[in-house]
Amino acid sequence: MDQGARVESLQQLQQVFGDRLVRDPDLIAPYAIDTSRAVLRGAPLALVFAESTADVSAALAWAHEHRVPVSVRGAGTGLTGGAMAYDGGLVLSLERMNRIVGIDAENRLAVVQPGVITAELDTACRERGLFFPPDPASARMCTVGGNIATNAGGLRCVAHGVTTDSVAALEVVLADGRVLRAGALTRKNVVGYDLKSLFIGSEGTLGVITEATVRLKPVPPGTPRTFRASFDTLEDAGRAVTAIVGGTAQPEVLELMDALSVEIIESFYPSGLTVPRGAMLVGQTAGLDAAEKAEGITAVCAAHGATDTGVSESDALLEARRLSNPALNARGLKISCDVGVPVAALAEVFRGIAEISERHGRRVSTVAHAGDGNLHSTVEAPDTPEGIAAADRVIDDITRLAISLGGTISGEHGIGSLKRHELPWQLDEAAIDVQRAIKAALDPRGILTPDRAI
Amino acid sequence: MDQGARVESLQQLQQVFGDRLVRDPDLIAPYAIDTSRAVLRGAPLALVFAESTADVSAALAWAHEHRVPVSVRGAGTGLTGGAMAYDGGLVLSLERMNRIVGIDAENRLAVVQPGVITAELDTACRERGLFFPPDPASARMCTVGGNIATNAGGLRCVAHGVTTDSVAALEVVLADGRVLRAGALTRKNVVGYDLKSLFIGSEGTLGVITEATVRLKPVPPGTPRTFRASFDTLEDAGRAVTAIVGGTAQPEVLELMDALSVEIIESFYPSGLTVPRGAMLVGQTAGLDAAEKAEGITAVCAAHGATDTGVSESDALLEARRLSNPALNARGLKISCDVGVPVAALAEVFRGIAEISERHGRRVSTVAHAGDGNLHSTVEAPDTPEGIAAADRVIDDITRLAISLGGTISGEHGIGSLKRHELPWQLDEAAIDVQRAIKAALDPRGILTPDRAI
Ligand SMILES: Cc1cc2nc3c(=O)[nH]c(=O)nc-3n(C[C@H](O)[C@H](O)[C@H](O)COP(=O)(O)OP(=O)(O)OC[C@H]3O[C@@H](n4cnc5c(N)ncnc54)[C@H](O)[C@@H]3O)c2cc1C
Ligand SMILES: Cc1cc2nc3c(=O)[nH]c(=O)nc-3n(C[C@H](O)[C@H](O)[C@H](O)COP(=O)(O)OP(=O)(O)OC[C@H]3O[C@@H](n4cnc5c(N)ncnc54)[C@H](O)[C@@H]3O)c2cc1C
Repeated sequence: MDQGARVESLQQLQQVFGDRLVRDPDLIAPYAIDTSRAVLRGAPLALVFAESTADVSAALAWAHEHRVPVSVRGAGTGLTGGAMAYDGGLVLSLERMNRIVGIDAENRLAVVQPGVITAELDTACRERGLFFPPDPASARMCTVGGNIATNAGGLRCVAHGVTTDSVAALEVVLADGRVLRAGALTRKNVVGYDLKSLFIGSEGTLGVITEATVRLKPVPPGTPRTFRASFDTLEDAGRAVTAIVGGTAQPEVLELMDALSVEIIESFYPSGLTVPRGAMLVGQTAGLDAAEKAEGITAVCAAHGATDTGVSESDALLEARRLSNPALNARGLKISCDVGVPVAALAEVFRGIAEISERHGRRVSTVAHAGDGNLHSTVEAPDTPEGIAAADRVIDDITRLAISLGGTISGEHGIGSLKRHELPWQLDEAAIDVQRAIKAALDPRGILTPDRAI
Repeated sequence: MDQGARVESLQQLQQVFGDRLVRDPDLIAPYAIDTSRAVLRGAPLALVFAESTADVSAALAWAHEHRVPVSVRGAGTGLTGGAMAYDGGLVLSLERMNRIVGIDAENRLAVVQPGVITAELDTACRERGLFFPPDPASARMCTVGGNIATNAGGLRCVAHGVTTDSVAALEVVLADGRVLRAGALTRKNVVGYDLKSLFIGSEGTLGVITEATVRLKPVPPGTPRTFRASFDTLEDAGRAVTAIVGGTAQPEVLELMDALSVEIIESFYPSGLTVPRGAMLVGQTAGLDAAEKAEGITAVCAAHGATDTGVSESDALLEARRLSNPALNARGLKISCDVGVPVAALAEVFRGIAEISERHGRRVSTVAHAGDGNLHSTVEAPDTPEGIAAADRVIDDITRLAISLGGTISGEHGIGSLKRHELPWQLDEAAIDVQRAIKAALDPRGILTPDRAI
């Protein structure tokens, strides 16, 4: 269909959305991109603000009928271009579907619309003595729907798993507008295929999540403790992480920042961080024995060469860690990866990254959800086409290294539009074929977030 | 293809399998059924014993080419007819693929072939201070492949989740013989669709699992304690379970047996169990504070009306619970369900089951993985067509009750061939359609465990 006919057919959609359908390019612009370095090509046709499942259904049925590509948008904090608008496409924003429908404290479940901000859900749960485990560093900006669509990780994964571990059931609108429910309120449910898990992490390509029933956990009693340990080398820090994860005292959070990232974070947001020679581990323990566990963990660090350790009731250090992304971005460091390795391979991957950095003659800064073996390395390079290409080559080498150690090309950010070329590095042909076959089965016209994620 | 041509084409398969291809009906017979009340219709064509992924691939490629239906068999302990042979079909046995390929203690992973017996894997892990969390009551007979294919539950789920929570990665042979790998060694992995979870619980209909990388956990220190509590009514026991699950001291196991099942188990396997008036809870705690936790839990039971409680280091009671299935079967009690409800609804579901039992004038015995809200109710009825039909009506009512309380028609046994009529009670039309579309996309000729699970 040509652009003229598309515009005409918009009237149909206007009847459903009224002034919640926006055509002004300036108003659409902020909804047409995400937080990655992906570049918008062309111009989207329109933006709609859905307020209900019926709205989403109407928007997709329209797009299906008229074969218009749709980008699905939570808060646009994604780092892989998943929510980028399409030329001539429809932008479907879920930010107004932001109601916490209910919290069932007895069954530890909450029902939410997809546009609820992650941290706001967590806050509401804490009033009932519960919390929502997923907490990406972006928790104050991103949406629960976006977290589910990317199977987001975050700081608490080492103790509480990733987003999929906290999702009980979903309502999803399929590409043709049909509504489907998947999952169950019970933990055990073997009733046909696990469609819930199929939609989780599918990055808006198989369906739009319009409601989620998520699992909550009780807030541990006592005051959490934050611990830190500085190391002269990244490898020492890596070995310490492996030992902590294999030990008896388990942390809620276990993060790593190398010297370069500590320096960058401290200059962006001065909080008195001392730049270590090699790397710094920061983390948190919880429960009545939080202090004891934190001491146990710093003792493990000391035994693995930590030069300086500390335990505190303030979580300023974790706040600093949460700001690593904007801090790096502010320095123009946008070429980063999201690789994962088995936790026992951490020292080895750090050694390899140092070698790669040296070989390419480019500084690499790494922050990591170390307890999960999930690393974000960022490459310093000038913001020119050549600089970006050079940085990309460094990232490619780090990614291939992670795979060679039994790892993954994406631990938590997903593939989006930026990482599709890496898929064959990790997946075999049959897996790629099966994913395409599933996409074709669920979205035969290819209108929903086409050409992404798989 | 007619039977004659099928038999002829078998020569092709014989070249691969040699004397591991069996045609003698007497030798095939034990591999043609499972442990459910499903009835074999017709006669299978042949049985093959696979010893490698290549064998499985050859068998499926042959079946695909000749459009022969294939039943996939682990140990045949399934309770829903999933592994029943097809008339003129091929029976693919995995029992000889029973090697533990390796245990990686540092990363807490084990690589196993599908035919490994669940309890044997667990024993091998314990030698390294680790354990394999899934432990269906059938653990000494069933296979890890069967557990994954049914997403099996068991006794430890309340603490450690279901089988899917312990699977890192799979090797799967698709219906046409192609080999695929899904999942990753890392906990975090957002790389295309979650095919691993799609295969888990798909009951042999989407692919044959030929290797699994499973997650292990460290054996908790100290001596576990077994606790028990007797109640005058099932409802009291249900309320106690809800309170325990919501409390601070968490059990590793939390099982319920009603009076009738205790009586049946005790007569099958006398172990000195005292038949309670209403129901008995039995469970286990672990860790250095196991005794303390067990006392805490029995205190919660007492506060909820338990008439008699006890804590012990012997786990004879749990052994008795594990025998409930054979004990019930020995009494001819085979018409049972596997429903689940949110844990806060336990008292209500027990009240409803009592009403249903009374209305139908049939005795119902219930054992439950109570901590998960997963109930197996069995109906007493004569082994006649009318008796079975009457029992089925009781089960139908219990199942609909569970669904009305936000529950599920199957917590752990799956759908197989016996429960497909119940699917529309729980799933909406779109979900059923999507499952069929996925099946058609992955197995277009419909040769792999056709007409089951979905
Ligand atoms: C400062 C910063 C820190 C971050 N830290 C972390 C971190 O610690 N861990 C982590 O995992 N990520 C992190 N991220 C990445 C990002 O926040 C997550 O990917 C988040 O889950 C995206 O949520 P969103 O609402 O912004 O989604 P968007 O960016 O709007 O969309 C992301 C993807 O999900 C799809 N989508 C969104 N909503 C829906 C829906 N309702 N139905 C279907 N598809 C949908 C989109 O189409 C797109 O493909 C960080 C990002 C920033 C900017
Ligand atoms: C006494 C007793 C107690 C039980 N207790 C429990 C319990 O507590 N919890 C529970 O969940 N279940 C329980 N069960 C049911 C049963 O043991 C489980 O479903 C088990 O997972 C089946 O394993 P299996 O190897 O016997 O599989 P089978 O019965 O051989 O097969 C079961 C299904 O899985 C498929 N399958 C088997 N292997 C593969 C493979 N490698 N690839 C693809 N598909 C495959 C089959 O096609 C079939 O659909 C019990 C059964 C008995 C008899």
